[in-house]
Formats: sequence, structure tokens, C-alpha cells
Amino acid sequence: MRYYKIPNETIRRLPIYLRALLIVTQQGKKEISSQELADLLTVKSTQIRKDFSFFGDFGKRGVGYDIEELVMHIKKILRLRDVRKAALVGVGNLGSAVLAYPGFKMYGFDIAAAFDCDCNKVGRKVKDIIIEDASNIQALKKHKIDIGIIAVPKDAAQQTADALVKAGVKGILNFSPCYIDVPKSIKVITIDIATDLARLSYYMPAR
Amino acid sequence: MRYYKIPNETIRRLPIYLRALLIVTQQGKKEISSQELADLLTVKSTQIRKDFSFFGDFGKRGVGYDIEELVMHIKKILRLRDVRKAALVGVGNLGSAVLAYPGFKMYGFDIAAAFDCDCNKVGRKVKDIIIEDASNIQALKKHKIDIGIIAVPKDAAQQTADALVKAGVKGILNFSPCYIDVPKSIKVITIDIATDLARLSYYMPAR
Repeated sequence: MRYYKIPNETIRRLPIYLRALLIVTQQGKKEISSQELADLLTVKSTQIRKDFSFFGDFGKRGVGYDIEELVMHIKKILRLRDVRKAALVGVGNLGSAVLAYPGFKMYGFDIAAAFDCDCNKVGRKVKDIIIEDASNIQALKKHKIDIGIIAVPKDAAQQTADALVKAGVKGILNFSPCYIDVPKSIKVITIDIATDLARLSYYMPAR
Repeated sequence: MRYYKIPNETIRRLPIYLRALLIVTQQGKKEISSQELADLLTVKSTQIRKDFSFFGDFGKRGVGYDIEELVMHIKKILRLRDVRKAALVGVGNLGSAVLAYPGFKMYGFDIAAAFDCDCNKVGRKVKDIIIEDASNIQALKKHKIDIGIIAVPKDAAQQTADALVKAGVKGILNFSPCYIDVPKSIKVITIDIATDLARLSYYMPAR
């Protein structure tokens, strides 16, 4: 099956749907309606049906969507069907949380390497991964790791990105609160754990 | 000025715009075009102009938007103009990262209290906050804290949410990888630091 050009905003929502579907699957659910999914998320059911229409019309009226089929489609679109290897740079609080977070595995990501520049951390083992010296980032080339996760302080973010790009990484998830410059062929997503708190405020009653 | 009904998807993007605007302000920029903003984010410039049209037509052709004015409008819509107090429950790796994250302050949030059930952590000071025993969550009522941030393990998430609701919290930011049940009047946003990694994969070249 061929997927036609899917809007960026739909792509932004697909991981959110996928996450909800994987969680309800763990609870033993096999089918779900767009309304049930809408109730779990802050997305309208009409929007959900429109987003799902990009990968074919397979929801049954009154029954809803087959969850396994939906998960398969979303994983295919997002290219998550094979395990993807990622390397983390910066094993501070946020980096440690990233290493311990079950969500990455759920999406098919394997954080296979971790780097830090603090010599007290280098050599320590966190979740089966031995923390390596950040000056060895170029070693990623050998390990076929093509995703880098930056969780270093703001001032070290650009040089970390440069090292990751030099090591052959094709995509970067940047947790540092700044934008980084990379060649156009490299995709960067900068995320901020505070943005969702900003959105929460809108939905709350005025003080 | 009155803001008309703004779609949820626009509300989802506003904190992302706000973050970018605050970062470029720090770099000394006063005006920005929708195209410049689009280049920083994975959002089309037409989408940005459409989103900004909800709060009036004040972009000047060829010059762009006045950043200060945009920031003011977005903060007004998101109700971020006054400092909002939040309490964190769970001071593990992710919770510690939340406490240390500069982004919350940037959006006008003050994390004013932190709780944990580990007696080795209770009484310790992190970023000027003394960690309190999680059994004292009801004390929030006295401190006019109306936002709760849950960063506890999955199995403790529901009971933490129950305690926060009982303590009068009106909004919850949930970092635990599960959905929680709360009364309808309470707004919950469940976030997953892995969802953006899932989206990154789509934009990367096939392996």
C-alpha cells in the first residue's frame, strides 16, 4: 500500500495516537472508536477520522478501528517497524530519565550508547549501558547508530550536535533549550518538556 | 480585545511559537516573519499566519511580526501573564530534571513545592525547594497551588492524581506512561518524552 503525502500536523499526532493505542492494547482492548480515542486525547474525533483516512478506510461503523491494524499502519508510516538505534549525549537528570524511560522501547527505539564529559560518570553502567567519554562520539559510525539525543546544558548543545553530525547521525532529538545549526540533510526536533505545561494553563479555570 | 474560539490544534502550537519567540528575543531579535519562524519549527508559514490571525491582523508585509506584541498575545491567550504555581510529585530522575529545567520559568511557571515518598529524599533541598513527604500533598490547599506535575512510577500515578485532586489542584501534567482518571472538571495533559523521537524517524532517510 502506498501512503500519499501526509501533512506535518498529522505526523505530529500519529505518535500520540500510537501511544494511546499501545496503552489500551496493554489493557486488553482490541477495537477502539474515534470517539473513545478522542476522549483519551485532546483531539476531536473528526480530526482523528480525517488523520486515519490517509491510510485507507478501514474503520467499521459502530465497531470502530481494529487496534492491531491501526498500530501496524502508524508504525509503517513513521518507519518504526524495525528497531532503531539511538545514542544519548548527556547523562544528567534528564538524560538519566531518558535512559530509564519505558516509552522509547515501546516505539521501537533502542538507546544503545550514552556519552558524558564528566569523568566521574564515564565507565558507570546505567540500564545495561556503559557511559562513554563524550570525546568518543565518532565511534557511533561503527555501531550503525543514526539518531542522536542531546541532553546536555545549553552551552554545550551546538558542539554536541556538530560531533553527532560528524559521526554520521541523520536525526537529532534536542532537549537543550536552544536551537542548533546543522546541515539541511539532518533532521532536528527540538523539544521542551515545559511546552505542555503552557498548554495546560489554557484549559484551566481562571484564577 | 476578545479572543474567539481558538482550535485545540492552534493551542497546541502556541507554546511552541512562544518558546521560539522567547529564544530569538534573547538573541536580540525584535521582528520575525512567518517564514523565519517556520524555518525554526516544523510548521508551515501559512499555518503560522493562520494561527496568528486568531488574535488580529498585525503582521506587516515585508517586515513581519513585532515579537514583543506576539509574545504578549500568546501569553494572554494561554493565561500565562501571571506567575502560576505548580507542585511536583516524584523527585526521581525525570522529576529532578523538571525542577532544574529553565523552560518552566520562561513560561511563567513557578514550581513551588515538591513531594516524594522516599524518606531518604524528604527534607533534601533541590533548587531552593525542600522535598516534602508525599503524604502531605493536602498541604497544597494552603499554598494556592493549582497545578500538579506527576513524575512518579506508573503504578503510583493514579493514587498521586487522586491526592492532587483532593488537594484542590485544577490541572495535572502527567509524565507517567499511563492514563489517569480524574473528575471532568480537572484538565489532564499526559506527555511522553518519547513521542517526538517517534516523529523524528518519519523525517529521516530510510535505512
